[in-house]
Amino acid sequence: MPRDTRIKTNPGRFFEDYTVGEVIPHAVPRTISGGERALYHALYPARHALYSSDEFARVCGLPASPVDDLMAFHVVFGKSVPDVSLNAVANLGYAEARWLRPVYAGDTLRASSEVIGLKQNSSGKTGVVYVRTTGFNQHGLPVMEFKRWVMVRKRDPEAPAPEAVVPDLAPHVAPGDLVIPAGLDFTQYDFGLAGEPHRLADYEVGEVIDHVDGVTLEEAEHMMATRLWQNTSKTHFDATPRPDGKRLIYGGHVISMARALSFNGLANAQMIAGINAGAHANPCFAGDTVRAWSEVLDKAETAAPGVGAIRLRLVATKGGEPFTLKGEDGKHLPHVLLDLDYWALMPV
Amino acid sequence: MPRDTRIKTNPGRFFEDYTVGEVIPHAVPRTISGGERALYHALYPARHALYSSDEFARVCGLPASPVDDLMAFHVVFGKSVPDVSLNAVANLGYAEARWLRPVYAGDTLRASSEVIGLKQNSSGKTGVVYVRTTGFNQHGLPVMEFKRWVMVRKRDPEAPAPEAVVPDLAPHVAPGDLVIPAGLDFTQYDFGLAGEPHRLADYEVGEVIDHVDGVTLEEAEHMMATRLWQNTSKTHFDATPRPDGKRLIYGGHVISMARALSFNGLANAQMIAGINAGAHANPCFAGDTVRAWSEVLDKAETAAPGVGAIRLRLVATKGGEPFTLKGEDGKHLPHVLLDLDYWALMPV
Amino acid sequence: MPRDTRIKTNPGRFFEDYTVGEVIPHAVPRTISGGERALYHALYPARHALYSSDEFARVCGLPASPVDDLMAFHVVFGKSVPDVSLNAVANLGYAEARWLRPVYAGDTLRASSEVIGLKQNSSGKTGVVYVRTTGFNQHGLPVMEFKRWVMVRKRDPEAPAPEAVVPDLAPHVAPGDLVIPAGLDFTQYDFGLAGEPHRLADYEVGEVIDHVDGVTLEEAEHMMATRLWQNTSKTHFDATPRPDGKRLIYGGHVISMARALSFNGLANAQMIAGINAGAHANPCFAGDTVRAWSEVLDKAETAAPGVGAIRLRLVATKGGEPFTLKGEDGKHLPHVLLDLDYWALMPV
Repeated sequence: MPRDTRIKTNPGRFFEDYTVGEVIPHAVPRTISGGERALYHALYPARHALYSSDEFARVCGLPASPVDDLMAFHVVFGKSVPDVSLNAVANLGYAEARWLRPVYAGDTLRASSEVIGLKQNSSGKTGVVYVRTTGFNQHGLPVMEFKRWVMVRKRDPEAPAPEAVVPDLAPHVAPGDLVIPAGLDFTQYDFGLAGEPHRLADYEVGEVIDHVDGVTLEEAEHMMATRLWQNTSKTHFDATPRPDGKRLIYGGHVISMARALSFNGLANAQMIAGINAGAHANPCFAGDTVRAWSEVLDKAETAAPGVGAIRLRLVATKGGEPFTLKGEDGKHLPHVLLDLDYWALMPV
Repeated sequence: MPRDTRIKTNPGRFFEDYTVGEVIPHAVPRTISGGERALYHALYPARHALYSSDEFARVCGLPASPVDDLMAFHVVFGKSVPDVSLNAVANLGYAEARWLRPVYAGDTLRASSEVIGLKQNSSGKTGVVYVRTTGFNQHGLPVMEFKRWVMVRKRDPEAPAPEAVVPDLAPHVAPGDLVIPAGLDFTQYDFGLAGEPHRLADYEVGEVIDHVDGVTLEEAEHMMATRLWQNTSKTHFDATPRPDGKRLIYGGHVISMARALSFNGLANAQMIAGINAGAHANPCFAGDTVRAWSEVLDKAETAAPGVGAIRLRLVATKGGEPFTLKGEDGKHLPHVLLDLDYWALMPV
Repeated sequence: MPRDTRIKTNPGRFFEDYTVGEVIPHAVPRTISGGERALYHALYPARHALYSSDEFARVCGLPASPVDDLMAFHVVFGKSVPDVSLNAVANLGYAEARWLRPVYAGDTLRASSEVIGLKQNSSGKTGVVYVRTTGFNQHGLPVMEFKRWVMVRKRDPEAPAPEAVVPDLAPHVAPGDLVIPAGLDFTQYDFGLAGEPHRLADYEVGEVIDHVDGVTLEEAEHMMATRLWQNTSKTHFDATPRPDGKRLIYGGHVISMARALSFNGLANAQMIAGINAGAHANPCFAGDTVRAWSEVLDKAETAAPGVGAIRLRLVATKGGEPFTLKGEDGKHLPHVLLDLDYWALMPV
């Protein structure tokens, strides 16, 4: 075997390679086209009209139909993987995600992450890295941002611990901090074309909506989706580490699947404006049948004409009792895949 | 479990919810791009030159290469599912499908269905609903139309039967009723680039063409295809109802696969102008290997320069004796998937 | 069964149907869009920045991001299959592939092959056909060319042998014969956005780079990829001939997978300018996990500003000892899938 065959490959960063305040530009900018949009519709049962029709989007005040907000998230997140989570032991959480500007076919996205916190674990073998990742379009304007924190291995367990910096993370994005796309206007909104008559006033806080349908996942689909975001985390593609030959499905695939299923009952929750918190409660594999339900957590006004905000809990499960999420120990039960808290924009 | 978790989801219409003469606008308009076109080529072995090359289409008098006619059908059909067949017990048939105007990348499609017939079954539990579904582009111009009839459950078996109205359905679209795309001209047609030398005069009524190749189907492919048309009929996606974990494949997937296979021997049957009748004779599942053959049923002239019409029977089978379609009882044998009767346009 | 059901289908050419000097135009021109580009990113873990971002490509002197060079190869190769290799017993090799002009979304590709050699085998049942295949864009300008030779069946073993003509094939493309795209300029190249800091000067001849990651292949993916190039060679789609139901994976799928994996360590080997030689050493099937490594074979200057050329051996394996390629008999061992020799362009 040749010597030094990996000196040019990316070993990823270890815990001691991060410094609070450092901004890490991520590689491989990406131009989005109608192709990515079509694939999103092939991979997920996505039907929200604002992402499906240029005409519908224009009636809502936008110049054309943007790509699904989650596509922007996946692309930006994918770019951050080689610099942030290649040596991650665990993705611990994310918070304060905000969409700042729609992304359209023809836009080119790039991303960078600022290190906003560091805390070595007591074992001395790992530490928690907090970053704020931001995606930008070709004009240098931010399109979305989120904070996440991951547990990263140390290269050298003897390396000294940095001063612990733990950022304040808001428990949820305040409604006043949501950014409404310029020009968005739901006063001419066509509920018939959107697919359901329910407006913000029709939803009650505490109301639960079962999205009814189930989708059984396939290896080819989740790999195509994850590659489409240029997320090359090997655990999603290489079957050899597991005796059953299955690959761990990218958590974002479950988010997109659950969000698309939520059309049935939430067809007018058109745009995702923020993610407050999220847990990938259990791993997901090909063969799992994903179902979803939502709970209305809050409602708010916005300054845009006819546009309100709805805060939703989106739960995805595989089998089991869908509405029983946690055991007596307070932990998610094994059939729970996703427990997400987000804000969407809806006609008032 | 929470109460009333489904009050906002679409329960679908039941038999007593339809009225003859009512026009039902379908939800979720859809903008088509080069992405949908590329996916069509990835999902089916489609090679007809008019759908593959802008240059070839221009020589035939069109402004650019349209999307496959079946793609327009799938999108329009998919839009009608939530309003017409969500509670269908059976899709009984379709007829009088006509393509009225090509669809190009950039077009936005929407659809509506007019109820043209109702007939309660003698059991009192179900009834037959006849609709004429029409797809429109962003200019409000019709791009295609078809009639179909489905058996739909009643919500309340005690509800009174409506007056029976059974529409006259033509046994086939008359050649004079076929709509030739404006500008279509096959006088400069390049048979070399198209792939075969056979023109309309070379085909005889009664001639049978074996399309030779077989394609084995996969779950990931048919689900991506069906989702691409935003057809979310749960039977195509949810593996849990069946012990073998298979999902029923959307009949339109078989139509597109058989039509694409028919290139070999019918490369110059460029555009589909009408569907006269069709039967999905048996269910299709992943693992089935689809083969196809065609029989020439009729030939006709059109008013467009160099453009003729060929009426074809397209049969798709899985295993078995491909040319033996029916048993002694007159019913399709289990290996027959599709028995379709359609009109295509071909150079004279 | 009907008589003569295959008289209109393409039987392919047999050995005696070829004449040295004949130019065979291939059918079915193809317009490429952003959709094909998106699918390429979904099917392969492709991350080279020049193919990912219009902005990055503009900084490198190009008008926009071209489609992956291998996509151009696949499309041109696919067009040649019905005329060159439908009755091939074996694909024996290829050489002297050169990329002559980038392909962009919106371009329409067509192809033709010139017969440059013929040699009947001693058995009298088969012969070797040598062709030079060239792809052209809608302006009639060549975009790439390659030579390949295949063993083809004779229709009639008694047919007389043609005069043997065996073309001179260069062992590799000379650096001076590589065509650098007009305007290409790496003097403003952004290594940070490209993903790695290594320039041509950092690579040594003889250096080996292990690309680390593995990708397990699925039937749905390779069939979608192969169909996307309109390559309809039945062995890739029909599961019925093999007891295990597997389909032989198109060799080009392995090339694209290995090339995409090589980003990790060769992120700046941006454009493929030539292929010198290549062997598909063993068949590849769904379930195989592909890994790749590269060896630097040569380095050269070019006349374009900041642009150098790197000659690479790209090896793909499935399991086994990745760096042991051949047995004592000098033949590739069963775990070796691909052994390719190519030129790429890299910042100096």
